[in-house]
Amino acid sequence: MSLETTRTEFIEAGGIRFAFRRLGVATGTPVVLLQHFTGNMDSWDPAVVNGLSETRPVIVFNNAGVGTTTGVTPDSVEQMSADAETFIKALGLPEIDLLGFSLGGMLAQVLATRNRGRIRKIVVVGAAPLGGEEHLLSVVENAFSRGAADIRLPLFFTPTEASQRAGREFIARALMRSKDRDPESGESVSGPQAKAIIEWCARKDESADMLRMIDQPTLIVHGSDDTMFPSINAYAMFKAMKDAQLILYPDSGHGALFQYPQLFVAHCRTFLDG
Amino acid sequence: MSLETTRTEFIEAGGIRFAFRRLGVATGTPVVLLQHFTGNMDSWDPAVVNGLSETRPVIVFNNAGVGTTTGVTPDSVEQMSADAETFIKALGLPEIDLLGFSLGGMLAQVLATRNRGRIRKIVVVGAAPLGGEEHLLSVVENAFSRGAADIRLPLFFTPTEASQRAGREFIARALMRSKDRDPESGESVSGPQAKAIIEWCARKDESADMLRMIDQPTLIVHGSDDTMFPSINAYAMFKAMKDAQLILYPDSGHGALFQYPQLFVAHCRTFLDG
Repeated sequence: MSLETTRTEFIEAGGIRFAFRRLGVATGTPVVLLQHFTGNMDSWDPAVVNGLSETRPVIVFNNAGVGTTTGVTPDSVEQMSADAETFIKALGLPEIDLLGFSLGGMLAQVLATRNRGRIRKIVVVGAAPLGGEEHLLSVVENAFSRGAADIRLPLFFTPTEASQRAGREFIARALMRSKDRDPESGESVSGPQAKAIIEWCARKDESADMLRMIDQPTLIVHGSDDTMFPSINAYAMFKAMKDAQLILYPDSGHGALFQYPQLFVAHCRTFLDG
Repeated sequence: MSLETTRTEFIEAGGIRFAFRRLGVATGTPVVLLQHFTGNMDSWDPAVVNGLSETRPVIVFNNAGVGTTTGVTPDSVEQMSADAETFIKALGLPEIDLLGFSLGGMLAQVLATRNRGRIRKIVVVGAAPLGGEEHLLSVVENAFSRGAADIRLPLFFTPTEASQRAGREFIARALMRSKDRDPESGESVSGPQAKAIIEWCARKDESADMLRMIDQPTLIVHGSDDTMFPSINAYAMFKAMKDAQLILYPDSGHGALFQYPQLFVAHCRTFLDG
């Protein structure tokens, strides 16, 4: 079973019908993946998801209002986190790990502070802390202006040949699923999600307090040259948190985990199994 | 065969009789370990060295003037690097990896820039770049003033219970070798080595140029609360280098690699095998 072939399931909770897919071995703490700005289940890299699923159960889902999940996309990280919590509780799992990328990494932080007993460890990739540095709108605008074959090539990868090649390979992998793909997100997703990210990063005064509230062991992963959320965010999170490991990758942008999928999976395994 | 039981060998080169020990599996690129300020072969953590040796050949040695190696301890990182190079060339290995800790991490940087063809990858732990931030003398003085059972408890570990416990376990491991131990270093080692470190860190203007000269893939590992060489050194090295990964560990001091030996060995394997 792989991300490309696993069938989509649905679960109803809090008035929302959540679309999700689960794969992986039956034993071990399941890891729930929290997706990036405008992303859906098919935006994940099969190399990452399938790699993780070799040694643990993996669950991907669409949050409220995204893809084939009903409801409205909220315009705050807190409400998105509450929706994700509703979905996770509905699954009835005794304990989980979280892996959040970008916006999903912000949700992972909120979920970790709110639900300590059931969240064991978190992996936060390409994210910013509350009050962190973001350049979302200018970076997205600049990326669109380049007329790339896929917006993720300029958004997620550096201009070097090696990074762009890795980007094309990632996009080829992410397009492998042919049946039952999620629809692309429109403005009903991008508008409120952009507002949520920008407001999250504007709350400078609350940053350190929130990071100190996270008790769970945390792995922070970031690209060296992330233009949307510069890597100093990751270093600052690491310094402020009680129990965080930091891993930064060379010559990589926002999509560092998709540029080095084998390396990222190896680092996740070492962290989650440790 | 283990670090605690491997016999000491000697090799003569450049007028110096170098003491060294080798262990590990026969195949794979050998990794040569470069030791910290005043350290000798018995200052390495058997858990780290033996762990690495499960999947590659490992070589530890005493540089000129240290322990059972003849010659005079030089007072510059460059001359120590030249001596290490003399030793490595005498071994006649076609290609090696380097793992340098603290002062040894400075030597690894110099060796990487000087001898590109034969050095494949480098691991730099608890080190500073040329022109980096150091607090060697004040930290050593402060550590001695605390009257600890072993100076490495305050020097290498944080004051938390978890870090100090890990420190005691490390020291117990490092004391396991009973036969043929290296003699402790005296002022003929500590004096010139301290001068070399301080002068290395005073060369602020040359830092970025040198880091950009390192072509080899590099893994930088550092403790969150290293008092001797603060972790910002590691972040700055990562940012300036062409092909570096950065890994920082939580609640850890200068001896982060000895606090988390299994984790460190796993990260080294992922990097060296990748």
